[in-house]
Amino acid sequence: MRLTTVGIDADDTLWHNETIFRLTQARFAALLAPYAEPGDLAERLAATESRNLRLYGYGIKGFTLSMIETAMDFAGDAAGPVVREILAAGREMLTHPIEPLPGVEAALALLADRYRLVLITKGDLLDQERKLAASGLGELFAAVEIVSEKTAATYLTVFGRHGTGAASAAMIGNSLKSDVIPALEAGAFAAHIPYALTWAHEMADAPLGHPRFAELPSMAEVPGWLAGCLEG
Amino acid sequence: MRLTTVGIDADDTLWHNETIFRLTQARFAALLAPYAEPGDLAERLAATESRNLRLYGYGIKGFTLSMIETAMDFAGDAAGPVVREILAAGREMLTHPIEPLPGVEAALALLADRYRLVLITKGDLLDQERKLAASGLGELFAAVEIVSEKTAATYLTVFGRHGTGAASAAMIGNSLKSDVIPALEAGAFAAHIPYALTWAHEMADAPLGHPRFAELPSMAEVPGWLAGCLEG
Repeated sequence: MRLTTVGIDADDTLWHNETIFRLTQARFAALLAPYAEPGDLAERLAATESRNLRLYGYGIKGFTLSMIETAMDFAGDAAGPVVREILAAGREMLTHPIEPLPGVEAALALLADRYRLVLITKGDLLDQERKLAASGLGELFAAVEIVSEKTAATYLTVFGRHGTGAASAAMIGNSLKSDVIPALEAGAFAAHIPYALTWAHEMADAPLGHPRFAELPSMAEVPGWLAGCLEG
Repeated sequence: MRLTTVGIDADDTLWHNETIFRLTQARFAALLAPYAEPGDLAERLAATESRNLRLYGYGIKGFTLSMIETAMDFAGDAAGPVVREILAAGREMLTHPIEPLPGVEAALALLADRYRLVLITKGDLLDQERKLAASGLGELFAAVEIVSEKTAATYLTVFGRHGTGAASAAMIGNSLKSDVIPALEAGAFAAHIPYALTWAHEMADAPLGHPRFAELPSMAEVPGWLAGCLEG
């Protein structure tokens, strides 16, 4: 058996994302400074986001709605002007320029020569398609799967549909919770490439010692690591 | 060649959708009655939605954001209490009970015995998955494709991936613009089942006289029509 298929996460693996959320949260805190302490505000926004995830799913539109809801909680009927600013901030996030992280393009070009590459990402459908198109990386992927949740069942389905099954596939991403742990559960290889910032919702412990797991400093190390998977 | 694959639209084809949008719009008009004439309000909301489609795509989250933006336009800094109500209305839309339209379940069961059924729908990823699960129809579909836009290219891709190509496929839906015209362009058969209400954005002229087109009164007529496609 040889490795045929490589799944790759998008946000914070191919391009910056959490940084943009954090910048928007800072802008949100400044807007609500007359009504709330930054710590209380951040805590309430995180709680609102977490409660709404089940309804809104992942992505900027749901985040914008959760910011508006939190602003109403703190500023009440005086929130009008803040709401206008939040709508503008959400729209700016949706048009933010996209640039691949350093080394990503060269590494993907190498990988695309050797494996079937599948982009596997959560978030808003249209926004993820826009970012992929803007990144210039679209041509390197044989398939794109935008999913509502990343579970072991997700990886079994996706690697079944676009490859030769999870056992001969690997998943690469910045989230231990979404990219690594469920992919290992599905029987695939999985590499974690940490990003400088991690959303609280995506925190998890590394599966150290798992024979199909690796922690890698950047995408540039992925081709070398994959070359050793399923060898010997 | 025989017909192998049937694509089926979801909103207003399998269950009510536009009705729920219209009810929410009526609630929105009542909320903003002190600030706007219903006609002006409806016109401005439609313009805001249309302008935002490119950024937000289809679905309830984008619609909720467009309602909030429109409320700010009319009520200005006094919009606070209205915004709270709009957020609640959006959440209610996202949890609205789903029931198949009359005759849909029986017709789909017949179709599923004879063809590979593929659900092809626009909208928010998580919301469309929730509605399919709540409808109880999920088991009848061999595949589900939630797409950001329905073009001829979309149908070529989807009928290539899940079937034997567009030439041996049919598409069934309530939108001439999204379900019928691009599917015919892709070379598939297409049947239009009108719903009582049509969103302005989905209006188009019927391709009367096209040899692969039919207008049918309900899903119950679909099995009979399909049986005659690609015969003789």
